[in-house]
Amino acid sequence: MKKEDDLRKVVLIGTGLVGMSMAYSMLNTGGIDELVLVDLDEEKALGEAMDMSHGLPYSKSSLKVKAGNYDECKDADIVVITAGAAQKPGQTRLELVTINAKIMKSITQSIMATGFDGIIIVASNPVDLMSYVVQRVSKLPTNRVIGTGTILDTARLKFLLGEYLNVSSTNIHAYILGEHGDSSFVPWMNAYIGCKSMMEYIVEMNIDMNEMHKIYKEVQQAAYEIIKRKNATYYGIGLSLNRMISAIFGDENAVLTVSAYQQGEFKQEGLYIGVPAIINRHGISKIMPLYLNNVDQRKFDKSCKTLKEIINNELKTIIND
Amino acid sequence: MKKEDDLRKVVLIGTGLVGMSMAYSMLNTGGIDELVLVDLDEEKALGEAMDMSHGLPYSKSSLKVKAGNYDECKDADIVVITAGAAQKPGQTRLELVTINAKIMKSITQSIMATGFDGIIIVASNPVDLMSYVVQRVSKLPTNRVIGTGTILDTARLKFLLGEYLNVSSTNIHAYILGEHGDSSFVPWMNAYIGCKSMMEYIVEMNIDMNEMHKIYKEVQQAAYEIIKRKNATYYGIGLSLNRMISAIFGDENAVLTVSAYQQGEFKQEGLYIGVPAIINRHGISKIMPLYLNNVDQRKFDKSCKTLKEIINNELKTIIND
Amino acid sequence: MKKEDDLRKVVLIGTGLVGMSMAYSMLNTGGIDELVLVDLDEEKALGEAMDMSHGLPYSKSSLKVKAGNYDECKDADIVVITAGAAQKPGQTRLELVTINAKIMKSITQSIMATGFDGIIIVASNPVDLMSYVVQRVSKLPTNRVIGTGTILDTARLKFLLGEYLNVSSTNIHAYILGEHGDSSFVPWMNAYIGCKSMMEYIVEMNIDMNEMHKIYKEVQQAAYEIIKRKNATYYGIGLSLNRMISAIFGDENAVLTVSAYQQGEFKQEGLYIGVPAIINRHGISKIMPLYLNNVDQRKFDKSCKTLKEIINNELKTIIND
Amino acid sequence: MKKEDDLRKVVLIGTGLVGMSMAYSMLNTGGIDELVLVDLDEEKALGEAMDMSHGLPYSKSSLKVKAGNYDECKDADIVVITAGAAQKPGQTRLELVTINAKIMKSITQSIMATGFDGIIIVASNPVDLMSYVVQRVSKLPTNRVIGTGTILDTARLKFLLGEYLNVSSTNIHAYILGEHGDSSFVPWMNAYIGCKSMMEYIVEMNIDMNEMHKIYKEVQQAAYEIIKRKNATYYGIGLSLNRMISAIFGDENAVLTVSAYQQGEFKQEGLYIGVPAIINRHGISKIMPLYLNNVDQRKFDKSCKTLKEIINNELKTIIND
Repeated sequence: MKKEDDLRKVVLIGTGLVGMSMAYSMLNTGGIDELVLVDLDEEKALGEAMDMSHGLPYSKSSLKVKAGNYDECKDADIVVITAGAAQKPGQTRLELVTINAKIMKSITQSIMATGFDGIIIVASNPVDLMSYVVQRVSKLPTNRVIGTGTILDTARLKFLLGEYLNVSSTNIHAYILGEHGDSSFVPWMNAYIGCKSMMEYIVEMNIDMNEMHKIYKEVQQAAYEIIKRKNATYYGIGLSLNRMISAIFGDENAVLTVSAYQQGEFKQEGLYIGVPAIINRHGISKIMPLYLNNVDQRKFDKSCKTLKEIINNELKTIIND
Repeated sequence: MKKEDDLRKVVLIGTGLVGMSMAYSMLNTGGIDELVLVDLDEEKALGEAMDMSHGLPYSKSSLKVKAGNYDECKDADIVVITAGAAQKPGQTRLELVTINAKIMKSITQSIMATGFDGIIIVASNPVDLMSYVVQRVSKLPTNRVIGTGTILDTARLKFLLGEYLNVSSTNIHAYILGEHGDSSFVPWMNAYIGCKSMMEYIVEMNIDMNEMHKIYKEVQQAAYEIIKRKNATYYGIGLSLNRMISAIFGDENAVLTVSAYQQGEFKQEGLYIGVPAIINRHGISKIMPLYLNNVDQRKFDKSCKTLKEIINNELKTIIND
Repeated sequence: MKKEDDLRKVVLIGTGLVGMSMAYSMLNTGGIDELVLVDLDEEKALGEAMDMSHGLPYSKSSLKVKAGNYDECKDADIVVITAGAAQKPGQTRLELVTINAKIMKSITQSIMATGFDGIIIVASNPVDLMSYVVQRVSKLPTNRVIGTGTILDTARLKFLLGEYLNVSSTNIHAYILGEHGDSSFVPWMNAYIGCKSMMEYIVEMNIDMNEMHKIYKEVQQAAYEIIKRKNATYYGIGLSLNRMISAIFGDENAVLTVSAYQQGEFKQEGLYIGVPAIINRHGISKIMPLYLNNVDQRKFDKSCKTLKEIINNELKTIIND
Repeated sequence: MKKEDDLRKVVLIGTGLVGMSMAYSMLNTGGIDELVLVDLDEEKALGEAMDMSHGLPYSKSSLKVKAGNYDECKDADIVVITAGAAQKPGQTRLELVTINAKIMKSITQSIMATGFDGIIIVASNPVDLMSYVVQRVSKLPTNRVIGTGTILDTARLKFLLGEYLNVSSTNIHAYILGEHGDSSFVPWMNAYIGCKSMMEYIVEMNIDMNEMHKIYKEVQQAAYEIIKRKNATYYGIGLSLNRMISAIFGDENAVLTVSAYQQGEFKQEGLYIGVPAIINRHGISKIMPLYLNNVDQRKFDKSCKTLKEIINNELKTIIND
């Protein structure tokens, strides 16, 4: 007999449009059994649960959605944190750091107080720093705290390259690495179309390499461009979160670029940053290292340096406070 | 060889949260090929298309989403109208009528000017009246203009009854009929759990019939309750719209409670109102009549009377203007 | 962290075309994590696991399929039994009884010896009698032994009525009750199209009731007709088995006509026979009783009488042997 | 209004287990509207259509399946040929050539006589030669005749490498090229795990390259091993065929290793053979060339040489006869 604790249970902390887009994506695709919405504004969480549930008779899934509080984390498999102050137009992701670090600390303490022993996914920005705070405060093994990192940046790169090259984005194999923010970069030498080197293909097709750089710029500016037009970005990250959760429950060993704790795989350690990692039922089973050339390694190191300064200057005080 | 006009193309007029929830639902479930977002605020439509598209590499569908203008209706299979002024807290659906009727007229003229020859789905409120305006202005056959009617009200009823009775909502067969608004009603004698009369079951289980009436009240108040908590309701209707579109493209002959043009099936004619109808590739292939008892027929007639007064007093002038 | 025993694990006993069609259906739709194929012919099970697994890269699921032995039942959630001698052309289902009862007994003993404590689904024929044997030998609670009963007969009825009436089979609500065999019947007074009485509709549409009886005859003869043409029937039952398993893992409370242990709900007791039942994570949560008219009750009683004679005359000896 | 010819219609020629596994896969996943089964044994086709259709009420798709004859090709989008004599245990794929070439010719003539103007997928073996025959006889543009080529061999390689390396097969990017048969090969230098060179990874992980060769051997022997155990192989190829059809209807531009007509992309021309190709609504939009090293090019050339000899010695006579 299936026991109650056998259900695939996810708790969402924060019912803003990012979290709710993940929730709605799950309602449409199925794959989990129970979703609990937690928000400081309990009435809002309840309204969201109602709005979602009313669509169930026309969904192909049988997801149970309800509003709840932190107690629900106790037997959850995965907790997703999307709460926090949002990025304002013109504001850099790093400027959000102090205020959100304190919020993360408090949320994490509330989660852990229930005896939670699962996987935490962090989507709050600046995501690499927030993932660090959550892991340190929770004291969970590093493989069980995962940030969304550059998963959406990578999706944007795949989509835009696919459009440009007229190839399905599922056959574009390329990553955005580094901080989810302005210092991220594409290791172009490690980019492929199917099993063909993308650089080789660019040359053969007489495509100007500047076109590729323009696409990267477009990825980097995507959030700003979308926020300018609709005040926020949430559908893309909603699907990305659903993808991470499928990879975990499906025990897929899927390679995704997420914010993962570094232990030398990319010659850096002691921080969270976006790298390709293998995701399964245990969280991050392994970081997949790439040989970066000097230029790319320097970009990665620089991305890390900025983050480590903030960790040392700001976060440690907040965490240990 | 598949011709271009063989693609399953939907144009969405209005990129508010209702329309976009439908769009996001489609992105997650697949089933159509191309979705064009049209909005007065062209930049917003573009931002929405970007946000949606960026999730594609993690979706199981291969939907193409883009921003566009009315020209795109020319070869569309289905146009969905969600534009219009939104229902404000405290405002009844009927109060929106004059302003939205004019908007519908203008939108419909723009659609028809392209030579569009497909199916129009109307979700703008008050939906029964707006469907009437769109059909009259478009001069499309009545089976090819469909309002969302009570499709979401019925979903809410199925969901709440399912929860209360501990039976899957897919096995709750019950309808909300009448105007999508305060005068709607449940013909309880035509309600079933699987193949068992719900009234019979209620009696056998010693359930107080007042519980059923409370559930209907909850359905009727659902939109108000959700709007109170999150300012708007959109996820449920998003799934409902996706369901209608699947039924059309899948040529399903599915029975759904939509706003359909009445030609005596329920003893009323000359208006759009929510009734069970069979939906397939031709739109509404047939209205499915029920025997209503006197009490229910009176409710239906009353619901129609209010609508017809508005049609005669307000809408005809706007349409013929 | 998700524990290993949190996986959705199904063990299939018997890798004939019925079992393998269920397995292939699951590979295509997803929904479970691990499927173990058990067969007396271990090499065949291995070949089937290979053939299935090789399609995985093009499937949207991440199902793990492997060949194994009874030990795998230990931590399985569901065991599906499709083993047994097959129905030969011309042979009635009842003639298979003695030989298959002995096979069921032996299989059940092997399953229970592992400490299995989940749900057993029986698809081997004659399914109502085999379900009885499996329950008695396993000593599992009756709600956790479920036979496929008339689930496929009901699907056939829904499909054929849907085709005839031009309505989606998902909106045809009608059951085949009784033994999965020649004595099954349709309680026509409990048949609906959406929320409309089917009998009422037949009259309104001037449809000859004989057409309905012809459709029932077609259902009853379907297995024979298919076997005549392709030697066996397996795709329909494969999908039916997958449906039952989804209802269990999804904790759906779905109403399905399965072979369920009778305790007076339909005025009979002490046997398994096809009736509508609510299926969730605990197996059969409840039998849904219908008021049968005298004619239908007599058919049901007769169906039961035949089965009980075999239980008393043949099965009890085999079970207690 | 959706026109009738807007339906996604597939005709399957040959209702053996390969074709029917494709059909059943489609019934489970959805994605097409109408499937027509054509077989010399018309009664068998009818039995298959019945068996499939009866599962529909429990499927999430709304596929219409029916038995038919060649006339149905007239307005089909895709015709799939799986007919032909099957590979017997011990028999090489090449030995089937003469008998099946004549069958292909006759089938193709019947298809084209209807005025068919879509895409033909050939799965009959030896598939590279049969694709050649079908293209030459049909006179369709070469991009609209596609053989299954090494699509299943590649799936097997991805699956086995994924298992061995503990990485999702969807992140294993590696191909089997050449004839679907004993002379196929893996261009290992063009194999990746995510965006990491597989050879690099093998070295880093101290994996013996012989393990990789063993995996290739296993792929090469897979059909023989499965046939030895269950007399035939069909589930893997069924999913592969469904994948090809999704890529076409979804206009995906997906890279798949199929049997494609060579015009110098891999330094060979005038034959069909397995190479990576971009598949969309027009069939093969483009072959994706790789730089093969000398060893791999020699293998490819050798694979082609054998095929061309048969084309020149056997097939041309049959085609022109």
